[in-house]
Amino acid sequence: MQASDKTAAGRFFEDFRVGDRLIHATPRSVGPGDAALYSAIFGSRFAVQSADTFAAAIGYPRSPLDDLLAFHIVFGKTVADISLNAIANLGYADFRFLKAVYPGDTLSAASQVIGLKENSNRQSGVVYVRSQGFNQRGETVLDYLRWVMVRKRDVDAAAPAALVPNLPQAVALAALGAACPPIDVSRYDRALAGSPHFWGDYEPGERIDHVDGMTVEEAEHQIATRLFQNNAKVHFNQFSEGQGRFGRRLIYGGHVISLARALSFNGLANAFHIAAINGGRHVAPLFAGDTVFAWSEILAREALPGRNDVGALRVRTIATKNRPCPDFPLRQGEGYDPAVILDLDYWALAPR
Amino acid sequence: MQASDKTAAGRFFEDFRVGDRLIHATPRSVGPGDAALYSAIFGSRFAVQSADTFAAAIGYPRSPLDDLLAFHIVFGKTVADISLNAIANLGYADFRFLKAVYPGDTLSAASQVIGLKENSNRQSGVVYVRSQGFNQRGETVLDYLRWVMVRKRDVDAAAPAALVPNLPQAVALAALGAACPPIDVSRYDRALAGSPHFWGDYEPGERIDHVDGMTVEEAEHQIATRLFQNNAKVHFNQFSEGQGRFGRRLIYGGHVISLARALSFNGLANAFHIAAINGGRHVAPLFAGDTVFAWSEILAREALPGRNDVGALRVRTIATKNRPCPDFPLRQGEGYDPAVILDLDYWALAPR
Amino acid sequence: MQASDKTAAGRFFEDFRVGDRLIHATPRSVGPGDAALYSAIFGSRFAVQSADTFAAAIGYPRSPLDDLLAFHIVFGKTVADISLNAIANLGYADFRFLKAVYPGDTLSAASQVIGLKENSNRQSGVVYVRSQGFNQRGETVLDYLRWVMVRKRDVDAAAPAALVPNLPQAVALAALGAACPPIDVSRYDRALAGSPHFWGDYEPGERIDHVDGMTVEEAEHQIATRLFQNNAKVHFNQFSEGQGRFGRRLIYGGHVISLARALSFNGLANAFHIAAINGGRHVAPLFAGDTVFAWSEILAREALPGRNDVGALRVRTIATKNRPCPDFPLRQGEGYDPAVILDLDYWALAPR
Repeated sequence: MQASDKTAAGRFFEDFRVGDRLIHATPRSVGPGDAALYSAIFGSRFAVQSADTFAAAIGYPRSPLDDLLAFHIVFGKTVADISLNAIANLGYADFRFLKAVYPGDTLSAASQVIGLKENSNRQSGVVYVRSQGFNQRGETVLDYLRWVMVRKRDVDAAAPAALVPNLPQAVALAALGAACPPIDVSRYDRALAGSPHFWGDYEPGERIDHVDGMTVEEAEHQIATRLFQNNAKVHFNQFSEGQGRFGRRLIYGGHVISLARALSFNGLANAFHIAAINGGRHVAPLFAGDTVFAWSEILAREALPGRNDVGALRVRTIATKNRPCPDFPLRQGEGYDPAVILDLDYWALAPR
Repeated sequence: MQASDKTAAGRFFEDFRVGDRLIHATPRSVGPGDAALYSAIFGSRFAVQSADTFAAAIGYPRSPLDDLLAFHIVFGKTVADISLNAIANLGYADFRFLKAVYPGDTLSAASQVIGLKENSNRQSGVVYVRSQGFNQRGETVLDYLRWVMVRKRDVDAAAPAALVPNLPQAVALAALGAACPPIDVSRYDRALAGSPHFWGDYEPGERIDHVDGMTVEEAEHQIATRLFQNNAKVHFNQFSEGQGRFGRRLIYGGHVISLARALSFNGLANAFHIAAINGGRHVAPLFAGDTVFAWSEILAREALPGRNDVGALRVRTIATKNRPCPDFPLRQGEGYDPAVILDLDYWALAPR
Repeated sequence: MQASDKTAAGRFFEDFRVGDRLIHATPRSVGPGDAALYSAIFGSRFAVQSADTFAAAIGYPRSPLDDLLAFHIVFGKTVADISLNAIANLGYADFRFLKAVYPGDTLSAASQVIGLKENSNRQSGVVYVRSQGFNQRGETVLDYLRWVMVRKRDVDAAAPAALVPNLPQAVALAALGAACPPIDVSRYDRALAGSPHFWGDYEPGERIDHVDGMTVEEAEHQIATRLFQNNAKVHFNQFSEGQGRFGRRLIYGGHVISLARALSFNGLANAFHIAAINGGRHVAPLFAGDTVFAWSEILAREALPGRNDVGALRVRTIATKNRPCPDFPLRQGEGYDPAVILDLDYWALAPR
């Protein structure tokens, strides 16, 4: 009997080198099945992504896939190479959606290691990567920085020279909109879209309670996360997780982002495209049986250089669990309100 | 901080006026992903909707989507405008399927308020609407009357003049069959369809126990109901429903209709198309963990004017929960047997 | 009131005759929705089935559907005619995948009764069938022998002459590869596929722990099994099963096969095609809440006659429940380790 060496155990902190370029498996053709499942799991109702006729009327060739579906599929590919031995997903920055993804496209992903910093306890370190998703023509569909805390295999392994890259606080306006074709606002039907409110109707400081709550089941988050071919162990294995820190499976953080985005339709129905994510923090874990609520604050309303069709809203969306948000829960003392699970800062585009 | 006024709270009884025409958000392109999910959730096995080859052999261009999938998607759109503040969904009438829906079609919906009657307690009232679903060519794919009890926002709001529209007991034979092309019965393969019994083999009064039972899980009904973009709050939010009347999420009534229809394959395999729904009553609620059974009675067998290819069977399908139906449970004393959850009266077409 | 005779109760042992040819309902067009659901339920990551670009680069017209998805859909059709009254699914043999299945294909199925043997207790007997799946051009896509223990309706029914067909221990090498086009190995990208290991890197006797575990939920196996239009009663009806032998719904054995295959990606990523199944045994039942693990042993590595592009690996995959497999659990005393649920012996193809 020979025990095989062919099983991938994932990289540990000391396996990363600044400059490494990682080509991720497995490329994935996306299509109407993925769109239907995404809709069925998250309940999204944005008209551009829902109806080919609506999308075509304003200038898209047809409905693009939900921006976050593309994100999850690209992100999923990076897991096996970057975060299989992660302790915590620390943050995102400079996250830009650069090209709309359509049914029939094939997505692939690659990452470059751009920074490393061992933790003072020498048990682990922070890995900084720039990850990119590509379509079948090699065009970059999304591009983002991510940093993640990764275990060391051997605590005695030598520490690399610390290098912490520049992490922009927000994506610049000039970088927004590449994935949104010029749209014909005169043909954007507000009744079909579900709201009369366009870009100019939102004011910085405005807070929107998205009202509805969505309870998550184990089968739902597992189905979604497998659809994304995300193989992080903590989401699927009750046998192991039952003996772990939480005693149960941890729901993929991206699941919360997609739920919060879908809930935000009630109040932001015309903010139809996520152009960029400035930053995001998974403040607390979500488990099956919990009910997710969300509210948003408009942080800024900005014109896009050279475009009169759409403008950008900088939105901060807070998701909570088991806590409705009519009073916009956020802080408690020095930290977050204990119900808060997500603090997401992004740029959405809406018709002007 | 400004609290936003952009969140839709849904119409209350006093917000409806007879003659109002409501354009519903969000149009929805339907495709193979929706067909697969519908099949996976309900287990339907009717050959026309399952196999392009079977459908094409008898005269369809390809497999149409399940009639009830089109129903649920159109119905789902009406919820945000009509029944977000509903206390009860009271009934359907004159429900006609007018055009087959194919993968690639985009469905939209609109409703007209055709009647209003405040309840004597002044807390709520009944709203009568005619709702219609359209495809991307503007053709009406289905058309139905529905009445629903809706809460008042302000109990002191003035009552509208009562107007109760005429609600036909059954759809006339002449109105059946528009969504079914002429079919070549000689090419309808009974072995592939799963039953030797055609229209002429059924007798009025015949009762069919559909035998099988199907247990429903929370994830299943949530996935289905979100696929339909139905955002009624009671189906998804355990946090709120846990404090409510039933202590748990209520399963969308249409879920029961689709389960009963799928179960009815065993006994009605060649009744391949629902041409019309004469009326339907959700007798009792269904919850996750319950097992649905069904039986049917043939109420009538009628030829269709001008057609020799298919005939109409008027079918009454009774669904129960946690109660097999070999003895056809229906009444107990003055009311329904306590196991009955659905009493549906419809016209199905079968080859002659 | 008339009780109908139109409900199918399934064949009992005495209803089968050697030589009977059974045409199974319902044909089924398969497409991108089925592929997405298969991926979402099982989490498969083999590149050929995942990405049209990857498949096209090496010589497929596009991504074929997962071999096991085709298997489950064909198998599902046979249930209503063969195993509705089965006590146990005893085995498979000579199971060959003969033609790749692509989105848009329509699958149908037929079986021939090739053997019968009443059990000595006269309560039941073993039915041997050859089942075949066809595409819309009438080409055989898969072909297999199966034997199953079926209840008698009437214990006094006369026993048929016993006939036990020859059941080959393994599929011959010459019968492998028909469903795999000639591939251009120079264009097979190991990085995108997720592993550097090709056919020649595996050694007979090598054992691979696939490491990961996957917990199964009721909603997941029900959704999958309905997608396959498999209507075996034991999978869906908690009301009846709650009163039965196990007190709960039994998960379709094919679900375990697909989970084990998906888990085997970690260690066998380039064994991209199942060419044949030599035999399989469902050693113990799986229930919702259980976590499935798997390990494999390479039984043989063989060249294929006339082919230099791909070679065959004979793989024995063992699945367990609630038991990781770093020590390759298999036997305990005379029988299986109590954690083992599946013992599967198959031929997979990998690039040379």
